[in-house]
Parts: sequence; structure tokens; C-alpha cells
Amino acid sequence: MEGIWPEAGTPLSEVLTPMPVIDEARMAANIALAQAHMDGLGRAFRPHIKTHKLPEVALTQLAAGAVGINCQKVTEAEVFADAGIADILITYNILGAARLARLKALQARVPRLAVTADNATTVAGLAATFDAAAPLRVLVECDTGGGRCGVQTPEAARDLAREIADAEGLTFGGLMTYPAPGGAAAVEGFVTKAKALLEEAGLGCPAVSVGGTPDFFAAGEIPSATEHRAGTYVYNDRAMVRAGHASEDDCAMHVLVTCVSRPTANRAVIDAGSKALTSDLLGFPDHGLIPDYPGARITGLSEEHGVVDLSGVEGEGPQVGEQLRIIPNHTCVVTNLFDRMVFHDGGVVTRVLDVKARGTVW
Amino acid sequence: MEGIWPEAGTPLSEVLTPMPVIDEARMAANIALAQAHMDGLGRAFRPHIKTHKLPEVALTQLAAGAVGINCQKVTEAEVFADAGIADILITYNILGAARLARLKALQARVPRLAVTADNATTVAGLAATFDAAAPLRVLVECDTGGGRCGVQTPEAARDLAREIADAEGLTFGGLMTYPAPGGAAAVEGFVTKAKALLEEAGLGCPAVSVGGTPDFFAAGEIPSATEHRAGTYVYNDRAMVRAGHASEDDCAMHVLVTCVSRPTANRAVIDAGSKALTSDLLGFPDHGLIPDYPGARITGLSEEHGVVDLSGVEGEGPQVGEQLRIIPNHTCVVTNLFDRMVFHDGGVVTRVLDVKARGTVW
Repeated sequence: MEGIWPEAGTPLSEVLTPMPVIDEARMAANIALAQAHMDGLGRAFRPHIKTHKLPEVALTQLAAGAVGINCQKVTEAEVFADAGIADILITYNILGAARLARLKALQARVPRLAVTADNATTVAGLAATFDAAAPLRVLVECDTGGGRCGVQTPEAARDLAREIADAEGLTFGGLMTYPAPGGAAAVEGFVTKAKALLEEAGLGCPAVSVGGTPDFFAAGEIPSATEHRAGTYVYNDRAMVRAGHASEDDCAMHVLVTCVSRPTANRAVIDAGSKALTSDLLGFPDHGLIPDYPGARITGLSEEHGVVDLSGVEGEGPQVGEQLRIIPNHTCVVTNLFDRMVFHDGGVVTRVLDVKARGTVW
Repeated sequence: MEGIWPEAGTPLSEVLTPMPVIDEARMAANIALAQAHMDGLGRAFRPHIKTHKLPEVALTQLAAGAVGINCQKVTEAEVFADAGIADILITYNILGAARLARLKALQARVPRLAVTADNATTVAGLAATFDAAAPLRVLVECDTGGGRCGVQTPEAARDLAREIADAEGLTFGGLMTYPAPGGAAAVEGFVTKAKALLEEAGLGCPAVSVGGTPDFFAAGEIPSATEHRAGTYVYNDRAMVRAGHASEDDCAMHVLVTCVSRPTANRAVIDAGSKALTSDLLGFPDHGLIPDYPGARITGLSEEHGVVDLSGVEGEGPQVGEQLRIIPNHTCVVTNLFDRMVFHDGGVVTRVLDVKARGTVW
């Protein structure tokens, strides 16, 4: 695939599409703003690497003041360990002999490695793998309304914490939750009760890790939290604009596309379909914003085509061959489709990075 | 990422998840059945490689009797040219100097290369690139109700065909359309009229290429067609079962996943989210079938988790650590997420192929 990726110095107008591009200055501003907010709260900040999957960006986040990173898979964490990152939290139930063996090998080179668990099967597997000479830190994942993983009650959190603490090879690392949007009060209520139960049980609670970009600037409403995890903030996207976290100007990722067909007066077709934008709607009725044609709506995606309804656009709309910029609904899943990521400064390509953690399967 | 992919001989029960796997015998049967159907119609068959992106599978399709392959991007076609494939139709408007130069280089090593166009800008770019010494074959894409690309009327098809025929470096290759589902009559009507106009204009019509898996077995309803293009048939998926093209047993791709959490009696969480299954709904209310738990519904996907509603399942449902098989809504987009594809015969891994055409950006 030689020649697919642009060289440094190439103007974006010459970048072949479809291609996501990242604005260096905007990303730097997003990193600085988020870190300053968490610094102001006196709260540790742990970026989730799912959004960029790039060791270089993770190192920038750490240099800005982050305490470590958040991954979701063992092989993903390995990529960042290769870059020398010493503090990694894998927020996932790690199961099965092969993954556990690989997790143990990872621990030998990551000074501060931790995982989460929400069930006894996971804890038993971890307990059988690690030993007192180098215990693994395990946080209990709590469902505070997000409706995904997590123990359901503060009592269950305490009971699982005890199982962890009782295992020779494990240490109880605290509580972790991925809150529902707007769920600060629910988190605080759950955590407060769980901490009291843990205290009663003599287990303590070394950390309370909460997360999410949508409620990032409401993190102060969870005073019990000791650290915040967030991923999307680094690039931002249409969903973060809707959530009030960012403005359109704060979106560092655009997907460059080309108008390849104008079959009718009200229809344009672009060269980006679900294999470039993904079909993540996240509640939107369409597939991304086109800032230069605010009335245009990407109404349908097939794999390599996007159909754009121009009936809300004044004038003729984009012509065949015209390059357009799209703010995707969801930036993290776009990253996951591309082997490399193109960065630019003021519209001129600065660097092209291998998306090293893309394709890390488990 | 050493060790992610299973070795030949590994039972599927030991394959780490999430991982799509392909049943060799089922795929072979799908290829044979489709080819036999087109042979019976006396129609050329041109498989679309979007579904597998694997040169090895394309060569199997050609060995079964296919006349050539269908790609959508220049860099994608390059991968199959590297495998020695001599007949490639790129069903896309190729635009811009860099892509056109690359297309010309590709033509030098693909004896039967053709592209499609639906507008004068595309034809002008092609005409300026190719010359009479080695003319490029160009088919006119027609919108017969699919609502994506394509000229809108038979008259417009004739006019664009004339522009192609008038260009020294191009030859008019016929008509191409991607029909709307159930759109056979509309295709036949459009094509019949366009062919008459082309005849009148002295242009002829060397080929009529139609496509799609959903209406594959209704291809006989378009007697004007000379060739059929289809991709999904090779693996099949939940959407093809719904379309009546295949049964669940005909689905060659399953995504292996693991139940990683059982937060409540009615909720399981699997280790496959939108980064393994994609968020393509294709009109379904949920994200795939779980044949071993027919009442289970994958109601939500985040990036690395799938939430499964077990309220329709009798008994306890899957336990933490249990491996499950999923028939995805849409197989083509799953292929696009994985760097390699695991094949098996009766549940034992046979080979692991590089998905060479994944990541071909334009």
C-alpha cells in the first residue's frame, strides 16, 4: 500500500480520500484543557486510549500530567507497554488460561498494572495466576446505572472485594464504574455506601475510578472519585458537541471525503461509507456533520458510498471532485478502521502515525 | 501481535475471542451453489471481493467458474492484481490525478480492467489519462432505483456512453447498475430502453452488469443482464437469511465471543462490541443472532462490550467464560475490522489468512 499515505508537508487539499485527519493544535488544546480541569479538581486523570490507539498520543497525555492510561484488552495494553508506559488499568474481566498467562507476562514489565473484575469466576482465574511475590491489583467494577458490566449493589462490591483481598496473589485496588450519562448522583450514592461497607469490613478503598467524556466537566459532582477516565475528549466528535462537552471547533478529527457523484439536484454521493465512517449513529438520524454545507445530511451509508441529501442546502452544493470535511458521529470507531492516522497543522500534513493498537483482537 | 491468531489444528473452543471464523465446507458450498445458478442462466458471474478481501478466496471463486472480480477501489484492485487476477471491474467513479495515475499503472498489469462512470467529470479525467494504444473500458453506471450513484435516465446513459466512445483512450463497455432490492422489473425496463437508444446511436452495448446477493436467485428476472456481481453470498449473514437467500446453516461466518459478565439474571455481557461486530443494524432491532440461545437478543453494543438480554431465554443462559457463536447482521463489515481471517473445518482451524485488501484506503 505504498503511496496511500501523504508525506509531511502535503496540503490537505491533496490528501486522497476517504481519510481521517487530526488537527495537532486542536488535539493539544483538548489535552491541555482536560488535564487542567482534572488538576483543578485535584483528581487523577487517566486517558482511555481507545480513541487514538497511538502510543505517541498517550505519551503526550502523560507528559501533560495524566497518571497512566486505560485500556480494555491485554494485547492493546501490550502495545503501550512497548512504549514504556508504566501505569495501565485494563477495565475488563480477563478470562481464560491464555489471556491470563499473557496478562502475567505483561505485569512483569508494567510497574503499575491493574485490572477490574465484576464476578467470582474472573477473580478465581486471576487468583490462580498471580502470587504474593508480585500481586496484581484488582478493582471491583460497579454498575451504577450504566447497565453494562458491574456488580449490582454496594454489598456485592464489598463481597467481591473480600474475595480479592483474600487471594494471596491479588490486592484490592478499589472501585471502578462507567456511569450512565448524567449519573453523578447515582455514582456518588453507590460509592459512598460501598466505601462504608468496605470500611466496616476492614478492607479500605484505595481508589474510586469513574469515567466518560460526556460528563467530564461534571466530574466535580462525584466528590468520592479519585480518578477520571476519558477517551473521546482528545479528538471530540459530533456526539461530544451534542453532549455540550465541546464545540464544532473543538473537534480535532475530520474525515476528508470527495464528492464522487451528483446523480440529482438534491443528491450527492461521497466516497466514504460504513468502512470509513462506521454506521455508529449514537442516536443521530444521520451519519456525520458537513460543516461547509450545514444543510446537507448524510442520510445513508453503504460500504464505500455515502448518500448526501442536499435539499436543505442553498445553492448548488458540492460538485464532483470537490473535497469535503466531515465531523464523524463517533471518532473512536473511525480510528479503529485505519492502519495509520494523518496529523496536520493548519491544513499541512505534519506526521503519519501507525495506529499500533488497531487490530489488537483481545 | 504474536500469539493472537490460532495455529492450524486448534479446536475452535480454544480460539480466543472475539474472533470471526469461516467454515471451509460451507463457504465452498456457497461458492458452488452460486456459480451453478449463474451457469444455469448462462450468465457470467463476477464475485465482489468486498465480503472477504482475500486473494485466496477470489482465486477459488475464479476456479469455480467466475469470469473475474468486482472491486470498489484502485488500491483494493492492486491487491488482487498482485495475485495474478486478470479481469477486474472497479465499480467506482475514479477521480483525481493521483488515483488516475495509479489506475493507469494498474491497467498495465491487468489484461481486462474496466471501471464505471456516471458523470462527465469522471469521463473527462479518464479520457485525459488513457490513450488509444491501450484504451480503458468504461461502463456507464445507471440508477435503476437503488438511489445511490448512476445516471437517472436511459437518455443520460446514452449521452454519457457517447462521451466515452468519443474519447480516444476509452471504449464504451456497457451498462452497470446496483439494483434496489426487488428491483428486477425496473432494471429490465431501464436497460431495454437504454439499449435501444444505444443501438440507434450506433454505440452498441457490450455488457449489462447487475448485482447483489439478496436478489441473486431472482437474477433470471433480468434477461437483459449479461453478468451478475455479488459478494455476501460467499459467507452469508443474518441479512441474507432474512432476505430468503440463505438459511442459518448456510452462514459460513460466525463471530466467536465469550460471556465475560453476568451482572443480572437477565443480562449477559459479551466481549464483542462495535469494534468486532460493527454497529450495522441493516434494519434489525439488535446486533446479531446467537444460534445456541435463540431467545437471547444483543440489545446494545459499546466499543468492546455487547449487552445481551436473556429475558427470552429458558434456563440460566450463558455463564461467565462460556464461548458463544454469533451470526452477524452483516458479514462484509466484520471482515473489514480484522487483519487476519481464521478458517476451520468441522470446528478445527485449517488456516489463517491475511486479509490483504483490508486497509486499502482509496
